[in-house]
Amino acid sequence: MKYIIFSIKPVYIFLIAITFYSCSSTKSGIIKIQEQGSFAVGGTVKKSPGTFDPVEHGAFNPRNQSTEGQTLHGDHGTVFYQRPVNARELPLVFWHGFGQSMRTWQTTPDGREGFQSIFLRKRFPVYLIDQPRRGLAGRGTEGTTIPAATDDQLWFGIFRLGMGTEFYEGVQFSKDPQALDQFFRQMTPDTGPLEIDLNIAAVSALFDRIGPGVLVTHSHSGGQGWLTALQNQNIKGIVSYEPGSNFVFPEGEVPEPMPYLGGQLSARAVPMDEFKRLTEIPIIIYYGDYIPEEVTQNPGKEQWRVALAMARKWTETVKKHGGDVTLVPLPEIGLEGNTHFPMSDLNNKEVADHLFEWLKEKGLD
Amino acid sequence: MKYIIFSIKPVYIFLIAITFYSCSSTKSGIIKIQEQGSFAVGGTVKKSPGTFDPVEHGAFNPRNQSTEGQTLHGDHGTVFYQRPVNARELPLVFWHGFGQSMRTWQTTPDGREGFQSIFLRKRFPVYLIDQPRRGLAGRGTEGTTIPAATDDQLWFGIFRLGMGTEFYEGVQFSKDPQALDQFFRQMTPDTGPLEIDLNIAAVSALFDRIGPGVLVTHSHSGGQGWLTALQNQNIKGIVSYEPGSNFVFPEGEVPEPMPYLGGQLSARAVPMDEFKRLTEIPIIIYYGDYIPEEVTQNPGKEQWRVALAMARKWTETVKKHGGDVTLVPLPEIGLEGNTHFPMSDLNNKEVADHLFEWLKEKGLD
Repeated sequence: MKYIIFSIKPVYIFLIAITFYSCSSTKSGIIKIQEQGSFAVGGTVKKSPGTFDPVEHGAFNPRNQSTEGQTLHGDHGTVFYQRPVNARELPLVFWHGFGQSMRTWQTTPDGREGFQSIFLRKRFPVYLIDQPRRGLAGRGTEGTTIPAATDDQLWFGIFRLGMGTEFYEGVQFSKDPQALDQFFRQMTPDTGPLEIDLNIAAVSALFDRIGPGVLVTHSHSGGQGWLTALQNQNIKGIVSYEPGSNFVFPEGEVPEPMPYLGGQLSARAVPMDEFKRLTEIPIIIYYGDYIPEEVTQNPGKEQWRVALAMARKWTETVKKHGGDVTLVPLPEIGLEGNTHFPMSDLNNKEVADHLFEWLKEKGLD
Repeated sequence: MKYIIFSIKPVYIFLIAITFYSCSSTKSGIIKIQEQGSFAVGGTVKKSPGTFDPVEHGAFNPRNQSTEGQTLHGDHGTVFYQRPVNARELPLVFWHGFGQSMRTWQTTPDGREGFQSIFLRKRFPVYLIDQPRRGLAGRGTEGTTIPAATDDQLWFGIFRLGMGTEFYEGVQFSKDPQALDQFFRQMTPDTGPLEIDLNIAAVSALFDRIGPGVLVTHSHSGGQGWLTALQNQNIKGIVSYEPGSNFVFPEGEVPEPMPYLGGQLSARAVPMDEFKRLTEIPIIIYYGDYIPEEVTQNPGKEQWRVALAMARKWTETVKKHGGDVTLVPLPEIGLEGNTHFPMSDLNNKEVADHLFEWLKEKGLD
């Protein structure tokens, strides 16, 4: 920058004004962070009997290490958070799905901004979770075996990018091979047995710590999200992208299991007085494209047929008991071609805009 | 910025100066991010023989899943980066140590800012790595078993917080039990066999992608850092906190293995023309406190006695061949009580300030 200023005239006032403007407004290019960081939430401690002897057992030997008297802190979730300047009141808490981590909400596979940065720009405090025994929260109190099985094409199908190795026509996913490479590398394995009670405890502990907020779930965390909201009053709204399991119904109103090619989807029963909690907060559920109404021989689509059917039943049930649930199959509002990951698809800004409008409408902004 | 001002009332100069100052300087409370995100680097692809049948094998069944014809993308590193406004030219690339992840550089166990935010405020672009088969980069092409063994007290000793369960006197670690709880929960296991060649390939791929930068290592990544610099010209300087192994010497100049209570520390040989590369960039090595000069019966201290002794030999050797290495045992510059994690100890701002001065001195800012 170079300024050549000869004498004081209105031009200075203009310059000062411009400078102040560019300084205090949220320019499109800049994210202003008041505070950011990471921490663990929830978790348990395992202790081995005996007494630790720091002389005898204080050196690292992976083949012969006494665990006598030692502890293991594990089963926590790990959170990375950012609070923007002039933050809105309610934070958005993002919880990944099966086989995923906080990467779900960061940069998209094709290198654009994910919901983390998109909603920071809209001045929401943003919390990203790695659930217990996943990603940065890898330390669990129970061991496991990681098979490293080749299964990319299985997930390509279940995540509805396409079938086999062929993309669906019109899918909102970049055809640059680098994008698919990045997408596959977002997956990360369980580092211990997957226990939803531990996950729920960790996310509930997060809401105990941060106070009121909106929970945003994806896929496998969808059902766990309902269960977390049953026990934590700080969850003031739920946004659920493609919930796939663990729909909770009041006892006596649980639908029959829904069979599909490859399995069946069962719902969970909870006492009516617990279920009522889900009628007290606004909820929105999104599903993407390529979800059939009828039985198909494509298992990658099939399981979502019953998930959407179950979500419809669930929506009716919550509404019947006075709740506020909006179910949005994205093609019905003109957003076509979405995969199981609308938050990182090519049209994720439109997907985010729809959520933003809903948050405003419900007073959750 | 350049100002050429010929005649102007002082009040306007003052106003404009104040405005620019508050705008372009990093105000204590605000971190201004130009761009942030995450991506995978390096990695391999494993493929099973045969042809994937999306109808037969397209549904998720953890007990009976054919891997025929499928791929597995794994062995990549995962990076989270932030580029501040008015960024300095050279980014800092932070690489964690054994059993750790990018959490090392984020919030400290007692809840203060780590090097991630401290150096963003100093306007460095900051890249945080999870090496292959760790944390967010959990997907590897080889399986493993995670034992979930109780070993907190082993690491309490090796990381030099204290011995057994007792903190060392004067240690720069909060006595709030929550801090130790958080510290233990930063650990996260290997999700596949630890292979340093994969780690080096991923970090080298990162430098291929981002161009020139400074590599900051910790502990186990220290030795891997030298090896990465041997093969990547974009590493323009190395900062190494408590390197513990894989010191590289020219063939014919490799010191004898150094025995210590619990094991022995060996050095690696590389051809002289490769070694020379380490004489071409400025390097600084830091060690904390509680490192004895003489043999002790405390294995947690013992291994660092030989690491520091090896680092001294290494420093001499690199210097002898014309290199620029500075070895800083922190107590010798008046910083006492540091653990194996100076970057997150109670005095981490002073530790960061020393690094900042060194970066300036070497023209790496």
